Amino acid sequence: MGVVGGGVVAALQDKRDLLVEMIGCPAELKGVLVRDTAKPRSHEISPSLLTTNAEDILGNPEVDIVVELMGGQDPAFDYILKGISLGRHIVTANKEVMARHGPDILAKARTRGVQVLFEAAVAGGTPIIAPLLRDLAANEIIGIHGIINGTTNYILTRMANEGADFEDTLAEAQSLGYAEADPFNDVGGVDAAYKLAILATLAFRARVKDTDVFREGISRITARDFLYAQELGYAIKLLAIADSRDGAVQVRVHPAMVPGEMMLAKVDGVLNAVEIQADMAGKLLFHGAGAGEMPTASAVVADIVDIARNLAGNVVPPAPPVLSEGIRVRPMSDLETRYYLRLSVSDRPGVLAQIGRVLGELDISIASAIQKETDEVAQSAEFVLMTHRASEAAMQIAMERLLELDVVSEIGNMLRVEEW
Amino acid sequence: MGVVGGGVVAALQDKRDLLVEMIGCPAELKGVLVRDTAKPRSHEISPSLLTTNAEDILGNPEVDIVVELMGGQDPAFDYILKGISLGRHIVTANKEVMARHGPDILAKARTRGVQVLFEAAVAGGTPIIAPLLRDLAANEIIGIHGIINGTTNYILTRMANEGADFEDTLAEAQSLGYAEADPFNDVGGVDAAYKLAILATLAFRARVKDTDVFREGISRITARDFLYAQELGYAIKLLAIADSRDGAVQVRVHPAMVPGEMMLAKVDGVLNAVEIQADMAGKLLFHGAGAGEMPTASAVVADIVDIARNLAGNVVPPAPPVLSEGIRVRPMSDLETRYYLRLSVSDRPGVLAQIGRVLGELDISIASAIQKETDEVAQSAEFVLMTHRASEAAMQIAMERLLELDVVSEIGNMLRVEEW
Repeated sequence: MGVVGGGVVAALQDKRDLLVEMIGCPAELKGVLVRDTAKPRSHEISPSLLTTNAEDILGNPEVDIVVELMGGQDPAFDYILKGISLGRHIVTANKEVMARHGPDILAKARTRGVQVLFEAAVAGGTPIIAPLLRDLAANEIIGIHGIINGTTNYILTRMANEGADFEDTLAEAQSLGYAEADPFNDVGGVDAAYKLAILATLAFRARVKDTDVFREGISRITARDFLYAQELGYAIKLLAIADSRDGAVQVRVHPAMVPGEMMLAKVDGVLNAVEIQADMAGKLLFHGAGAGEMPTASAVVADIVDIARNLAGNVVPPAPPVLSEGIRVRPMSDLETRYYLRLSVSDRPGVLAQIGRVLGELDISIASAIQKETDEVAQSAEFVLMTHRASEAAMQIAMERLLELDVVSEIGNMLRVEEW
Repeated sequence: MGVVGGGVVAALQDKRDLLVEMIGCPAELKGVLVRDTAKPRSHEISPSLLTTNAEDILGNPEVDIVVELMGGQDPAFDYILKGISLGRHIVTANKEVMARHGPDILAKARTRGVQVLFEAAVAGGTPIIAPLLRDLAANEIIGIHGIINGTTNYILTRMANEGADFEDTLAEAQSLGYAEADPFNDVGGVDAAYKLAILATLAFRARVKDTDVFREGISRITARDFLYAQELGYAIKLLAIADSRDGAVQVRVHPAMVPGEMMLAKVDGVLNAVEIQADMAGKLLFHGAGAGEMPTASAVVADIVDIARNLAGNVVPPAPPVLSEGIRVRPMSDLETRYYLRLSVSDRPGVLAQIGRVLGELDISIASAIQKETDEVAQSAEFVLMTHRASEAAMQIAMERLLELDVVSEIGNMLRVEEW
């Protein structure tokens, strides 16, 4: 009964009439697992419903649906498995468990004839899993581009608007409760990678593991990158990208420059958005709250209603999607895209020629370049370039070779440019 | 077997394997009703499947699902009713029939125990009906703001980008096939009103008729309105708006000024978008193709898969939503919003005082004003003002009284400003 759990309890109690109308009978709360029954709660709840013993919930034969909102792998994963084995339907918002063990959980649910729904695990209150499974059922999914971590999108939006640097903005986000004391899960892209693995698994109907996801966080982005991005007409966003080509998927979470006129460039603050490219439907964007008590509870209760309708109607629950094993994952070196590169260079003749030669040898051609901020005392300058499409493998070699040049003192940042 | 029908036939044939995987068994095409069996078809189809006799489809006991894609009220409505009475499940993209007779059709389907799905009737390939019914099941819907007519959004986008006038842009849209020879259904807001009635009926779970929708088209908008809108930081969009307050709904389709930073302001071209405000989930935006062969076919086939899964699994189909009768509809005069007013006025002293007096007497206060385009020969000028929040009833009286003033020669346009 944390933030989301409190919202679910409140909705089940306050929306009793609406839920009866939706389900056909009441959805009764039978018990809530808590750490401390004596802790004051923001939502009123009968103390007799609280328990510190998971057995009281899982083992109660009157419980049809177990709602898991504890987060983290342990003991949530065990509880979910136990619930399934006891024939309980499961609703969970647990992205970590679903990213790591989703296919196994769904296979077990299939065998046991129960439903496991997890709409809230990705993009909080924004529907994305049900639309992917239901509304895009006839589509081959070509690609997914998502902003699915509110914390980093808040930080990047503030940096873009205020010209502030990463560390200051992170500290502010922490003080406002938008970022955790240990922010790595968010700013390092771990959270987004979990969610992307879930989306990719469903979209491509094959197990994509969180460890398959290439992951790069936002901590290297500086106020100067935003300055250049804005000058060039781009936003900087932490994107979660999955695509499928020739039967192989690529999954990656990293900051990217997004053309300012694209809808994803306009997704600001803690909001989330997922754009899905599908062969028949074309490009679809789903945009809304990615977290928060009531939005996430909205998704959880929608899943509860979905299962409860089947129970009330004596309907055999639809089987979970069939997922294949062993899809090929294309490595990051296979990527081909445009790149933004910010270098600290010596302010002397011939620098551009040397950089151009390194890039040219690797078949990387420069689309545009900006030189700024000459420091006359240090005789250094900042040199920013945008490449045409080039291979990631070549780009990685290029960065090593550029650093070996006497005239390049530092690679300030490299950002991939995403246009789709 | 028109545009969308052709797409559905192609998908059923080309995606046989995917559909088997999704449904659990093949979805077999049993017949297609056409006007002329000899007409060449863009998609290959066995001539033995074509018929000009609806009875061959509706009366065939091997047909489980009847897909109605003829459009218009007659004879589609009769065919749908007949199909239901024969126990067929129905998939339709027919916004006119669903707007006018949706609640009756759903009630009959409920009695007969069949499903009637119509995802494609609103926003084509963009999922909106299923998310409203499924993902927002626990929510009270507060409001809907949609761009749900691609033709008008294309025209308005071109006008905004090219500085062109309405008539020229309409002619261009007609030559490109984006607008019909008789464009009234689109530019007069009729099409959007049908779709809004469907959305409002589902959102508020009460019968909202297409005739309940206040409707104003886009033909009065000029290039000059876009000039002012851009100067003031707004986009001009044909919005379909529904909201519920104190148990009464208001439903309206009219051009509106939308603050440039809102997501809906950025929906361009033939694309559609619907933003739903819900008590728990907050604001959700669904954005994508609103028409077109394959996007619309995507929604139709998703509905077919939904029903077919239930059939294949021997599942009792979920009952259609229960809709109440007799919801109160708030009249347009109840509206309170901000207004944009463009007037042709005499270019002489005291004009502003006279206009200000008329508005002041009706409690309409001016937020900002622009005077431009003085024509020295005619001694006339263009005067644009934005009001603070005011009542629609007062605004309508104000426009009459302003026209009675000697100094006002014409009301160029009045646009409602929507911020939500």
